[in-house]
Amino acid sequence: MAGSPSILVLHGPNLNLLGTREPEVYGSETLAEIDARLRVRAAASGALLEAFQSNHEGVLIDRLHAARGQAAYVILNGAGLTHTSVALRDAVVASEVPTIEVHLSNVNKREAFRHVSLLSGVCVGIISGFGAMSYVLALDAALDALGLRR
Amino acid sequence: MAGSPSILVLHGPNLNLLGTREPEVYGSETLAEIDARLRVRAAASGALLEAFQSNHEGVLIDRLHAARGQAAYVILNGAGLTHTSVALRDAVVASEVPTIEVHLSNVNKREAFRHVSLLSGVCVGIISGFGAMSYVLALDAALDALGLRR
Amino acid sequence: MAGSPSILVLHGPNLNLLGTREPEVYGSETLAEIDARLRVRAAASGALLEAFQSNHEGVLIDRLHAARGQAAYVILNGAGLTHTSVALRDAVVASEVPTIEVHLSNVNKREAFRHVSLLSGVCVGIISGFGAMSYVLALDAALDALGLRR
Amino acid sequence: MAGSPSILVLHGPNLNLLGTREPEVYGSETLAEIDARLRVRAAASGALLEAFQSNHEGVLIDRLHAARGQAAYVILNGAGLTHTSVALRDAVVASEVPTIEVHLSNVNKREAFRHVSLLSGVCVGIISGFGAMSYVLALDAALDALGLRR
Amino acid sequence: MAGSPSILVLHGPNLNLLGTREPEVYGSETLAEIDARLRVRAAASGALLEAFQSNHEGVLIDRLHAARGQAAYVILNGAGLTHTSVALRDAVVASEVPTIEVHLSNVNKREAFRHVSLLSGVCVGIISGFGAMSYVLALDAALDALGLRR
Amino acid sequence: MAGSPSILVLHGPNLNLLGTREPEVYGSETLAEIDARLRVRAAASGALLEAFQSNHEGVLIDRLHAARGQAAYVILNGAGLTHTSVALRDAVVASEVPTIEVHLSNVNKREAFRHVSLLSGVCVGIISGFGAMSYVLALDAALDALGLRR
Amino acid sequence: MAGSPSILVLHGPNLNLLGTREPEVYGSETLAEIDARLRVRAAASGALLEAFQSNHEGVLIDRLHAARGQAAYVILNGAGLTHTSVALRDAVVASEVPTIEVHLSNVNKREAFRHVSLLSGVCVGIISGFGAMSYVLALDAALDALGLRR
Amino acid sequence: MAGSPSILVLHGPNLNLLGTREPEVYGSETLAEIDARLRVRAAASGALLEAFQSNHEGVLIDRLHAARGQAAYVILNGAGLTHTSVALRDAVVASEVPTIEVHLSNVNKREAFRHVSLLSGVCVGIISGFGAMSYVLALDAALDALGLRR
Amino acid sequence: MAGSPSILVLHGPNLNLLGTREPEVYGSETLAEIDARLRVRAAASGALLEAFQSNHEGVLIDRLHAARGQAAYVILNGAGLTHTSVALRDAVVASEVPTIEVHLSNVNKREAFRHVSLLSGVCVGIISGFGAMSYVLALDAALDALGLRR
Amino acid sequence: MAGSPSILVLHGPNLNLLGTREPEVYGSETLAEIDARLRVRAAASGALLEAFQSNHEGVLIDRLHAARGQAAYVILNGAGLTHTSVALRDAVVASEVPTIEVHLSNVNKREAFRHVSLLSGVCVGIISGFGAMSYVLALDAALDALGLRR
Amino acid sequence: MAGSPSILVLHGPNLNLLGTREPEVYGSETLAEIDARLRVRAAASGALLEAFQSNHEGVLIDRLHAARGQAAYVILNGAGLTHTSVALRDAVVASEVPTIEVHLSNVNKREAFRHVSLLSGVCVGIISGFGAMSYVLALDAALDALGLRR
Amino acid sequence: MAGSPSILVLHGPNLNLLGTREPEVYGSETLAEIDARLRVRAAASGALLEAFQSNHEGVLIDRLHAARGQAAYVILNGAGLTHTSVALRDAVVASEVPTIEVHLSNVNKREAFRHVSLLSGVCVGIISGFGAMSYVLALDAALDALGLRR
Repeated sequence: MAGSPSILVLHGPNLNLLGTREPEVYGSETLAEIDARLRVRAAASGALLEAFQSNHEGVLIDRLHAARGQAAYVILNGAGLTHTSVALRDAVVASEVPTIEVHLSNVNKREAFRHVSLLSGVCVGIISGFGAMSYVLALDAALDALGLRR
Repeated sequence: MAGSPSILVLHGPNLNLLGTREPEVYGSETLAEIDARLRVRAAASGALLEAFQSNHEGVLIDRLHAARGQAAYVILNGAGLTHTSVALRDAVVASEVPTIEVHLSNVNKREAFRHVSLLSGVCVGIISGFGAMSYVLALDAALDALGLRR
Repeated sequence: MAGSPSILVLHGPNLNLLGTREPEVYGSETLAEIDARLRVRAAASGALLEAFQSNHEGVLIDRLHAARGQAAYVILNGAGLTHTSVALRDAVVASEVPTIEVHLSNVNKREAFRHVSLLSGVCVGIISGFGAMSYVLALDAALDALGLRR
Repeated sequence: MAGSPSILVLHGPNLNLLGTREPEVYGSETLAEIDARLRVRAAASGALLEAFQSNHEGVLIDRLHAARGQAAYVILNGAGLTHTSVALRDAVVASEVPTIEVHLSNVNKREAFRHVSLLSGVCVGIISGFGAMSYVLALDAALDALGLRR
Repeated sequence: MAGSPSILVLHGPNLNLLGTREPEVYGSETLAEIDARLRVRAAASGALLEAFQSNHEGVLIDRLHAARGQAAYVILNGAGLTHTSVALRDAVVASEVPTIEVHLSNVNKREAFRHVSLLSGVCVGIISGFGAMSYVLALDAALDALGLRR
Repeated sequence: MAGSPSILVLHGPNLNLLGTREPEVYGSETLAEIDARLRVRAAASGALLEAFQSNHEGVLIDRLHAARGQAAYVILNGAGLTHTSVALRDAVVASEVPTIEVHLSNVNKREAFRHVSLLSGVCVGIISGFGAMSYVLALDAALDALGLRR
Repeated sequence: MAGSPSILVLHGPNLNLLGTREPEVYGSETLAEIDARLRVRAAASGALLEAFQSNHEGVLIDRLHAARGQAAYVILNGAGLTHTSVALRDAVVASEVPTIEVHLSNVNKREAFRHVSLLSGVCVGIISGFGAMSYVLALDAALDALGLRR
Repeated sequence: MAGSPSILVLHGPNLNLLGTREPEVYGSETLAEIDARLRVRAAASGALLEAFQSNHEGVLIDRLHAARGQAAYVILNGAGLTHTSVALRDAVVASEVPTIEVHLSNVNKREAFRHVSLLSGVCVGIISGFGAMSYVLALDAALDALGLRR
Repeated sequence: MAGSPSILVLHGPNLNLLGTREPEVYGSETLAEIDARLRVRAAASGALLEAFQSNHEGVLIDRLHAARGQAAYVILNGAGLTHTSVALRDAVVASEVPTIEVHLSNVNKREAFRHVSLLSGVCVGIISGFGAMSYVLALDAALDALGLRR
Repeated sequence: MAGSPSILVLHGPNLNLLGTREPEVYGSETLAEIDARLRVRAAASGALLEAFQSNHEGVLIDRLHAARGQAAYVILNGAGLTHTSVALRDAVVASEVPTIEVHLSNVNKREAFRHVSLLSGVCVGIISGFGAMSYVLALDAALDALGLRR
Repeated sequence: MAGSPSILVLHGPNLNLLGTREPEVYGSETLAEIDARLRVRAAASGALLEAFQSNHEGVLIDRLHAARGQAAYVILNGAGLTHTSVALRDAVVASEVPTIEVHLSNVNKREAFRHVSLLSGVCVGIISGFGAMSYVLALDAALDALGLRR
Repeated sequence: MAGSPSILVLHGPNLNLLGTREPEVYGSETLAEIDARLRVRAAASGALLEAFQSNHEGVLIDRLHAARGQAAYVILNGAGLTHTSVALRDAVVASEVPTIEVHLSNVNKREAFRHVSLLSGVCVGIISGFGAMSYVLALDAALDALGLRR
């Protein structure tokens, strides 16, 4: 599969607990299960997919830097950092990789401070509110942009 | 195909000009071509898809009312009305049909008054920034929610 | 009943669905039933009452223009347009008919964008929160102002 | 008339001067005359009506407390306190009596600081702009809610 | 007069009542009279002028679309829609016709919500406060830009 | 001294402690001493001066009502109520007595919430920042307006 | 117990109803029971504790003045006045007694207007959200500051 | 030409550089050339036109004062002072000469601080966005108001 | 009169027209007459008074600088500059002369932008709303502070 | 002590320097000393107390996750992160452990950006302003809630 | 030294008093001494340096205009005008000379209205807080940009 | 070189990519090259310079703590954290080392959220907009303050 384009899925703070907490809100699927599902789907289209989660802003920035010149697309769920981190926004720009912003829940239905995203202005597009399906749709958008979707 | 679930795609003001204006921004595909593409895709999953465009807020509201108890999902691109129409928001609620908010462009990269959506708070989810692909992703999300995606 | 003063009841967007949706919130009485009740009550005081509903801002404005020099009072439930339509506000002024603003629900208990009314500043008074009874009270206020109440 | 439901009319600061000041704005009827009119109207429907005025926030709160478990409805004109008193708002809630907010003038036509009411969010409904008639309409709304209106 | 450039004058909501209402504010000239005056003046410079009024946002948008590739200039008095309609703003852009924003009254002397125009940012220039003369000046500006003024 | 015009000096909350607290800020003169000084000065110009202090908003309002038709001028230091009491503002208007707003300290040098006065808009003028001298200057202004100053 | 330091507990508007209303929110303990509990606890540490409640801002201010030079600490639950009374804030300063601000509920989980406290800036510290326990903690803080805690 | 009405054209800061800087934005016509053009046009209608430029707020105010009782109309391009000078606004009022506000560029397309004009509220009307033509249109408006236009 | 303290009265933009414009608002007394009145009053208390007016911010700043180490008090009516000039505020501080802010009209009754003063924070006190009497009161305050009042 | 409930004390950024810096503000007690004191006090009530400090947001989030299903209560001093970290707020919710917000200083007396807490809305209660005693009071509140206080 | 690049140092209002006022804040060096120091330093790098101070906005604008096409760099301390003068900002742009914004004090530590600079957006860079050294650093930055620094 | 004062240069998130990304904006010099240049310059003045970069807020805070009592000056480019990190601000204060805030670009020309710095209020001064030269100027300022510059 040498030469396959690579897609990085980046999960922000607290997403490691997915599936184990408030399943009625976020679904019972764990992050590992979602990542596996995405990996299979990407592979079926001839793409490599790597997923990574961290609760540390700095680690997420480091990972975005590493994606530079290596990944063809980033799917980014910044979680709480979405609304507060200019540094993460700058890292998206610095990575020079087209990035899709993803949210599990519809953030516009939640607290007012979640209605503003520092990431949206530097991302290609935004998908929010579809639970784990948000990631699947983002992956399809990336594959489509890469000319890989069947 | 009796009994097939029905999906309504609703396009707001100025979208009738799609494909004929600023193709470098919005793509060269016309609204009719997009609708045709969506209709085929829906049919392939066993769903009926109807598309409708109007520049009149009142006509869009009437159409949403007509979808009540008839459509299984609505895909709504409110265009300029997204940011100004409480009446359209109320119609989404009144229709009692789950609705997905869609935008061609990433509205967060445009004027500040486009960063606030009156529709998001009453929609299932939001997809913006992927051009015509935004509609395709929304359709897939609707099909998935209806248990129809292969 | 020649010479009877005429009262116009104007219902804004989505009110056509009254009684068929969220009856626990808005009551199970339909708009037609409310209008009939108001018509009887007005007639009992020697007034003609005409009711009109539209989901179209422009149609509501046209109707207000038609009331000019013809109706003695307007009872206006602007619904979602209450908070967004300067044009409707201007039409109230242009009609030169004293107008009462009415709401079924107590808008101050709902979303923040419903706390501001563009109509209040050009209406005689405001009645909100009493369900269908809001219209009855407004009618009584109009009849009283016209010297018709027994 | 034992067993008759009781309605409390509560007048806030400066309303004691009604009828003696700016009659062209507020009418020439005194508060005593209004109260008498309301009392007669309530009695005609089989209800007891008690009216009370104070310029003291604390006294109004005490009176609301006293209405708890005793009055069936409160009609409250908070006057200037409407816009500034969280304590009065809390007292409305604490009284556990359904309350109607009333204003003589249309507060939305006056200074900007009068456009916000701290009371509206905890009242059943609001009636403003009809002069002394505002009270009459509120009484009718209360009687109607109590099933007493003829 | 084949080949004469065409100028579209578009009047928004409530302007149909011009001349019949508050003549001391808006003048006693009716819209038909103003339009006639403009038509004559345009003709004298070798231009065709068409005037159109509607109280319906959607109809105004449709008319702007029709002007695309057909009119050389638009003179637009958005009236109340000026301050609330993103859809009309988008239609100005979509029409690809240079547009001049016009107001009869000096909107900066009126309510605060009239101090913000959603149209100004996409118009060539703004003329406000000169009554019917505002239209005449806008016409002269358009003729001048078209190289038609004598 | 029958027929002498009467001037009411009204001191708001916490001013009873004047002279006993933070003398380096407010001076060591007590309220009684200031009142005495003012009384002598007024008498010298042929005016009666009455001074009154209360920590109760309602009592201050009652006192303003009592001044109606009786006092020729009011000198009002609303203290903390200056910034929060619409009821006191309404009482100033209701009293129909020309009123001068006075402050010991320069409120513009203190917390931001003290920079807004609800009283200023209904008072003749404002004097602040001169300590006890603020009252003296206000008295002179009142005497001057009454044609009493020598 | 001569010479024992004295602690004043001051309860603001509506707190007199504690225990009799919404016990699931505020607990079923009455204010008298809380006061008794506090009195015993203070006595055990060698302090006198006096508790006082009023619905009148002015009475609370008077009581704070009386505490001046007499009480060693004040525990103040301003209730609704917390967010609106500059006069009460000034009285805390004027009393020259160190004061602890207390709330039964976590005010940050309630309406936005309760997120701002005019008292916090002049109090030693704030304790909110622990129900009746908030008072106990405040008492312990006061005793500790007075060197009285065991 | 004795008795001819006089029109004063007042240019604010930095306009002396017109034509020599950013000609693609402001045109290559110099201020002297514009003034000459305006003078000829005014003369053709029987009016005297005087033009004056200064970078000094105080000098502009002095010139406005001098126009009092002497000029029939003022055409004012306040440039940067438009958005910051209350003193210039006051001078417009003090001059008692009807004034037209003019801008070369469409200020609504520029920085946010240029969207607010302190002058608009005291001017007859506003013309902006037409380059040097803005002045010509303003002159025509003035001539028209003076009954001088042919 | 060698050694007499000197008081500088500084009048800002447009005040040179006092008495000749809107006499019903500002009085018919000219600035020269007011200055003369103040000069006499100051002399009677053994003080020299110099008055100065300019429409130029820079000239007013220069004059304040000149007062440094020479004048004992400044009475400053900044007029329109009050609300916009940080430079004038800095000059008041730089002059190191205690300064009293004066206004003829009650600025709180005028446009919102006049409710904020950049000068108040660096002045001893403020007197506004008493017409020419505002200056007299300010002079008395200055004389009193200098120990010169009889 | 098997089965003893466990309490986690979490200290945010810069608190490691406690006691060594600005002792007059924060006291001379070090964090280690405070932790030791808390540990002893908890043990005396039969609870285990663990304390943890980090300058890294991510590490604090990890620690909160680890507390899930293990700790009975969290005492959290978010320090600077209190005002900026949505991720930390989300972690508090994700931990599903009741949490008390603690501050050494009274944050309401400090810079405006410290007046807003992102944590308060998801914590049981808040204690601020008592120095190290804030932790002790929070521990007592936790023990009390766990039924462990003597 | 013919052909040497010229650098203009422009000092705004009140800076003429430097060194003679509040030396503990601004240092005891006078403006003349600073200018001399800068002149020597510039000369050592082969540049001519001219310094100019005025308290008049208009004079500063005139001086910036004069620098056009003549000076190679401007070092501008706008002082109080920094926060209020759009005209000065426009002059910086009009001069077409690269400009460095300089402040003696760290304006971010002062009043809120000094936190906004109208000049920053059109300057190359900003240096603030280093006293007279701010000018030296700005000069070095200019020399460096001109390729003159050794 | 024992005894030489030490200067710490701290680079925030994403600065590690300097020189490799957008060289037309940030220059082609890498961070290592800049650091080397600064080290040489410091050494020439007899100072030690250490440079450190991290994408982790916590690591930067740790490094600031380590500088306490060890470094004589800090030069801090907080990058994206400048606008969002109260914790970093607190660390600057906690370090007790005088700190200079540095930015490569002129942040006032970028997005609005970059116009506010949480660091400026606790730094000695700010230098922004000169690219790598910003660091050199900051170093010179530090050396000057330490009495080390030649």
